[in-house]
Amino acid sequence: MNEAHDAVDVIRAKRDRRELSDSQIDWVIDAYTRGSVADEQMSALAMAILLNGMNRREIARWTRAMIASGERMDFSSLSWPTADKHSTGGVGDKITLPLAPLVAACGVAVPQLSGRGLGHTGGTLDKLESIPGWRAGLSNEEMLKQLADVGAVVCAAGEGLAPADKKLYALRDVTGTVEAIPLIASSIMSKKIAEGTGALVLDVKVGSGAFMKTVDDARELARTMVDLGTDAGVTTVALLTDMSTPLGRTAGNALEVRESVEVLAGGGPADVVELTLALAREMLAAAGRPAVDPADKLRDGSAMDVWRRMIAAQGGDPDAALPVARENHDVLATADGVLVSLDAFAVGVAAWRLGAGRARKEDPVQAGAGVEIHAKPGEEVRAGQRLLTLHTDSPEKFERAISALDGAFSIAPHASRPDLPPPLIIDRIAR
Amino acid sequence: MNEAHDAVDVIRAKRDRRELSDSQIDWVIDAYTRGSVADEQMSALAMAILLNGMNRREIARWTRAMIASGERMDFSSLSWPTADKHSTGGVGDKITLPLAPLVAACGVAVPQLSGRGLGHTGGTLDKLESIPGWRAGLSNEEMLKQLADVGAVVCAAGEGLAPADKKLYALRDVTGTVEAIPLIASSIMSKKIAEGTGALVLDVKVGSGAFMKTVDDARELARTMVDLGTDAGVTTVALLTDMSTPLGRTAGNALEVRESVEVLAGGGPADVVELTLALAREMLAAAGRPAVDPADKLRDGSAMDVWRRMIAAQGGDPDAALPVARENHDVLATADGVLVSLDAFAVGVAAWRLGAGRARKEDPVQAGAGVEIHAKPGEEVRAGQRLLTLHTDSPEKFERAISALDGAFSIAPHASRPDLPPPLIIDRIAR
Repeated sequence: MNEAHDAVDVIRAKRDRRELSDSQIDWVIDAYTRGSVADEQMSALAMAILLNGMNRREIARWTRAMIASGERMDFSSLSWPTADKHSTGGVGDKITLPLAPLVAACGVAVPQLSGRGLGHTGGTLDKLESIPGWRAGLSNEEMLKQLADVGAVVCAAGEGLAPADKKLYALRDVTGTVEAIPLIASSIMSKKIAEGTGALVLDVKVGSGAFMKTVDDARELARTMVDLGTDAGVTTVALLTDMSTPLGRTAGNALEVRESVEVLAGGGPADVVELTLALAREMLAAAGRPAVDPADKLRDGSAMDVWRRMIAAQGGDPDAALPVARENHDVLATADGVLVSLDAFAVGVAAWRLGAGRARKEDPVQAGAGVEIHAKPGEEVRAGQRLLTLHTDSPEKFERAISALDGAFSIAPHASRPDLPPPLIIDRIAR
Repeated sequence: MNEAHDAVDVIRAKRDRRELSDSQIDWVIDAYTRGSVADEQMSALAMAILLNGMNRREIARWTRAMIASGERMDFSSLSWPTADKHSTGGVGDKITLPLAPLVAACGVAVPQLSGRGLGHTGGTLDKLESIPGWRAGLSNEEMLKQLADVGAVVCAAGEGLAPADKKLYALRDVTGTVEAIPLIASSIMSKKIAEGTGALVLDVKVGSGAFMKTVDDARELARTMVDLGTDAGVTTVALLTDMSTPLGRTAGNALEVRESVEVLAGGGPADVVELTLALAREMLAAAGRPAVDPADKLRDGSAMDVWRRMIAAQGGDPDAALPVARENHDVLATADGVLVSLDAFAVGVAAWRLGAGRARKEDPVQAGAGVEIHAKPGEEVRAGQRLLTLHTDSPEKFERAISALDGAFSIAPHASRPDLPPPLIIDRIAR
């Protein structure tokens, strides 16, 4: 059905700040997926898009073309409404783990297609794989059955969903073209729209540990994605949340599973609980179930019940002991006072270097590796007290992890009491 | 000797408008030549350079790194000084053919490495190959011997000269990154500096038939190249010359050889003679022979003698009949008046479509195909008079050639006498 175009003409158009036509966008995505537009042509186009931008119509069409490159899922046969959450990625961001069973316990099914970590941000699938027996790969039929039976599923996206995005994402990763808002937005939204969720809540992170370093960039990305989802018929809302400091008190795979189970048991760090409940309320409202209070479902154990069934349905043993790293090392406070800052990016890099993350897609991760956080910004500390504990199976990794933490925290005298930590939830974007 | 870098870091630096370090430039060119920087990474970098530019230091280093990717030639054993000419390419630009033997006849050796045509501009080697027996490929030893014996050689660049440029040029051609002044300048100058010429005169074309459409762009390119050459120890001068209308009265391979021989015989179109003499004077001055008047060498037949020896030395028969196309078609003037314009780009595209040029590097060209021009801008024409004659071996090509000429010329009533054609030589850039 596509009109034929020439790759060089399409690249030149965007290079020269012209708008791409619907037909040019449909053609270039299809031709790239089929291999008749070469990687070196798509990377030049991606760089031109990064530097010259795309308008709202172009981004919508680009997203639509990526969806059209593969299959679409359909949850309309389910008896419950569906809602999904997507986070743009941060340090210590384990929210999906308590959130998916919690929302399911409230009567809304959660079909969560997740990814693996790359760079300093962890991946939800890597975290769940630290649970003995748990497997990330499900067929579409298994996914649908688990949604009907349990109400929540967290799994890897199948090969058939937005293959253009898979190919383009791998290309962007090696060509310095990841940080383009139109491409980030269309990558996320093509998968979420193709997945077929009825409602979507976006957690757009902002700060040192996030891809978006400024509130303005995060707001632009959020607005772009809310527009894309809404225009595609998915009720979409975004929260802008702080990622200047790690979320919760752990960064690392098994460490974060343990913390998530604490939240499901009614405990856990205040910030993790706050964000889990805020996102759950948004998902319930977007799915048309605003009357249910998710806090009740943490208290009465029903969220924990869904968690156990969700893990078991994917082969995991919810009662198995989680892996623990063989070696650890404490980082101590150097003065008495108030912890003013603990930099998310530095902690993320340290956890990554300890073995919790991977440098290349094919690398393995250590289940037990990561960083435990004993003091959060705003808390009082005393000289010699443990601030962080580093965990790894490979003690030779401590040195580079410690060097990543150089300058990562600051302690102010009691008397001075400088800037408070920023609020966790910065803004809410909806249409 | 190179410090190791990461391709994504280098791409990001230029993407974010930072200056590339010497070490980054050396590394990326070397790694790309060796294949450890991939085509898709280099094309993203080329697009970032096109959109964000490079400063004078970066361009000089980039050029130096491309030269270092291959061998350098050395003409210092010759008993005469050397000078070369490079044109950025236009329609009907056969100047190299009379110029090289003319300058040699004046006592300056001309080692001219030339290329083939791509797109609407013809290639010097394609033109000379219409002479029966002539061959473009010479070894470095053959080239040096011919320079010593004849004083002039026009041949293809060997594989060993600036291989990084060969690879990068082919990549730019398919990724919409040809039109970057830093990359155009470094591509031309890396080959010319590696070639080892003592002096270099640049003919930078401006107008519809040239790559540079505006005088400002052409001047920037000229200045960049003059700086690069001068900094590398090559006496370098540039003329900015008009390419809004074709040069001379022919565009096409054998047609242009015939016109060049007319110039060497003391005749030929006034504009071709004017530009040949102007460039010859610049080359002689740059090579330290300003006292010789090249016009004498056209009159006394000594330039023609060098031409005949130059062609024969490369296997060609200077007395052989040149190929003639089997079919021709006249384009007639539609009114009485003054021919105000004849668009170079349109004539170039018509000649290309008639078979004089190639769409892809591996395509053959027709020796006899092209366009003969019977009236030039500023001349009087009468309705029904021949303006152009189109030549081809393949009469099915006439239709698309004629459509390229739609709107290509305009005739004004005698009384009005509007804009005169622009001067042929627009500016001179030297340091």
